Amino acid sequence: MREVAIVGVGLTKFGRRDDASYRDLGVEACIAAFEDTTNISPKDIEAFYVATGQPERHVVQSQPAALFAEYLGLDPKVAARVEMACTSSSVALRMGYIAIASGLVDTALICGVEKMGEAPPPELSVTMGIVDDKEFAACYGLTPPSVFAMIARRHIHEFGTTEEQMAKVAVKNHENATKNPCAHFQKRISVEQVLSSPVISHPLKLFDCSPITDGAAAVILASGEKAKTSTDVPIHIAGSAQVVRWNMMTSMPTITTWLPLKEASKRAYKMAKVDSKDIDVAEVHDCFTIAEIIAYEDLGFCDKGKGGNLIDEGVTEIGGKLPVNTSGGLKAKGHPIGATGAAQAAEIVKQLRGEAGKRQVDGAEIGLTHNHSGEAINQVVHIYRRK
Amino acid sequence: MREVAIVGVGLTKFGRRDDASYRDLGVEACIAAFEDTTNISPKDIEAFYVATGQPERHVVQSQPAALFAEYLGLDPKVAARVEMACTSSSVALRMGYIAIASGLVDTALICGVEKMGEAPPPELSVTMGIVDDKEFAACYGLTPPSVFAMIARRHIHEFGTTEEQMAKVAVKNHENATKNPCAHFQKRISVEQVLSSPVISHPLKLFDCSPITDGAAAVILASGEKAKTSTDVPIHIAGSAQVVRWNMMTSMPTITTWLPLKEASKRAYKMAKVDSKDIDVAEVHDCFTIAEIIAYEDLGFCDKGKGGNLIDEGVTEIGGKLPVNTSGGLKAKGHPIGATGAAQAAEIVKQLRGEAGKRQVDGAEIGLTHNHSGEAINQVVHIYRRK
Repeated sequence: MREVAIVGVGLTKFGRRDDASYRDLGVEACIAAFEDTTNISPKDIEAFYVATGQPERHVVQSQPAALFAEYLGLDPKVAARVEMACTSSSVALRMGYIAIASGLVDTALICGVEKMGEAPPPELSVTMGIVDDKEFAACYGLTPPSVFAMIARRHIHEFGTTEEQMAKVAVKNHENATKNPCAHFQKRISVEQVLSSPVISHPLKLFDCSPITDGAAAVILASGEKAKTSTDVPIHIAGSAQVVRWNMMTSMPTITTWLPLKEASKRAYKMAKVDSKDIDVAEVHDCFTIAEIIAYEDLGFCDKGKGGNLIDEGVTEIGGKLPVNTSGGLKAKGHPIGATGAAQAAEIVKQLRGEAGKRQVDGAEIGLTHNHSGEAINQVVHIYRRK
Repeated sequence: MREVAIVGVGLTKFGRRDDASYRDLGVEACIAAFEDTTNISPKDIEAFYVATGQPERHVVQSQPAALFAEYLGLDPKVAARVEMACTSSSVALRMGYIAIASGLVDTALICGVEKMGEAPPPELSVTMGIVDDKEFAACYGLTPPSVFAMIARRHIHEFGTTEEQMAKVAVKNHENATKNPCAHFQKRISVEQVLSSPVISHPLKLFDCSPITDGAAAVILASGEKAKTSTDVPIHIAGSAQVVRWNMMTSMPTITTWLPLKEASKRAYKMAKVDSKDIDVAEVHDCFTIAEIIAYEDLGFCDKGKGGNLIDEGVTEIGGKLPVNTSGGLKAKGHPIGATGAAQAAEIVKQLRGEAGKRQVDGAEIGLTHNHSGEAINQVVHIYRRK
């Protein structure tokens, strides 16, 4: 298996993008990624993965890989749309990694994209519900907020986590987003504002939830050899792991410890020959504030049940020992389903290159991304290293 | 790159399957594939690809890879839904090939599945239209029958191909389907019946078109080493190629010669170290009868413009020199979008193993599958060899 590095990243402005079509968003991110690399033009891309959740329902467009391939002027040997709900572009990143590590291709482009804002709200309830089993879960009205509300209630019961601690996750991520020009939200919020925002599914309030966002993110991968001439600072993918176990919460032995995440992080750390304490900066999947707290625990950043303490102590703020979601996270940067994993990777690349501007983590050399989907049943972890 | 072999295949009955849900179909095909192999159980599957077109619209279900993983009891290291419209499962087969050839995994399962019959006809017009560009093609009402009607009219104009020759493709494939218990249609038709069937988009009549079908097909792949203990007759993937160029017919230099197919077949032949004349049996993408005729030409089975002669001379019938679509093809076996490529592979595997029953091609050792999508802009070719 050969070395694989990220040599270019691109991001659109996240938010409500009525000025751009679905196609425009994907193309905008990919062009930005090409401008971020050297000696790699569209014709050089050998493997192309469009990561996107439900364009068929969100914008009434299918087969996006052919659409984007033409508009970008690509001529790839492998082209496909990859979907795994909220992890679509992390899974695509893993596929690009595999295609290059195998020796089959030297370059890959991942285009993560979703345009959600033009779909009417009832349609969004459908698209969010049907990532779960239609016949045994979605049909009863189960949607992500109710899933994560149950997880939060149980975590509060078992470990004494508080609604204030959850609120502090939102406050931190909004603070970080004010330092990220691409983030959906650009304003600070207070713990009081979170706690007094409308209840969505108790104990989750509006400001505990990530928003409906339009956006795209692109990543260009190259073999270790090719990377030398494609960027001044190649960021190597040192670890890559995915674990899918169960499809429904009702099948899980526990909903407050995410066993697939524990296993995925164990494999990724082993592959990268690092430990959780070696991580300098991380982007984790804070679709709801409770998810960031559980991610701290199951990634090994703290003991089980102590995630709330980490946020109380400021450990995961910029300036803390292990800054998490410096980009603003899904909560404040936004969560355009198919784009999220690639956007996480882009943030870590910028941090490890030292290009993260006002949100830069000093001396960051090893980074991690964590992305999950469905009822936390599918977990993807990547580890990145500046060499 | 390591050797990769197919060690198990499974197919559901194709047709209108009101007796089975989308989930049931996929699971049925995968169980059949596991029963077709030895020493590989669900827990041994390391990479899992669900190939499916638009379950979000056809059956209102997303994230199928997690759904099927749970129901099959899998624990894969890589899991994703792969979509590339009508080529979804051929592209997934190529991804499985890459993952094993790379040395990353030893086994892969491809589950191709589509349930189209429960969607109301207006919904199907949407799903078929939006594989093309929504903003520049689908919005004008362009759907696959009108695309292939234009291609057929031009082929008739340039090369003198006749409507009778196109009809004979349908007659041959219906004849073959009567020998395939899994095929959607089980009845013979005549040239007169095809020519007098209702016009869909001139010159295409109803019986020139593949039907709306429910069905699933599964393929289990293993490394060359692992294959030795997993089947008596491993069928090696000797060539694999995909070419995506343009997204719309209007961009193409010609619509009667499919340049991406010529290039894909050239690459696949080269990789397999064979020539078109070495192929003993082939499954080609006969979404419309004209497509089979053009496939003959651009796969190099005959000179350009002479595809009609091949069907006149009976070359591609069972018993002819190069039998094509022994399964009944998309035309008569059926075309459940996501399942088609895997079903083509399954047919070739059965032929090369000598297990094709009444439709067996004597002494077949080298087989080919050809699968395309959209306006023939994305072409995938695989070559298989019995060793």
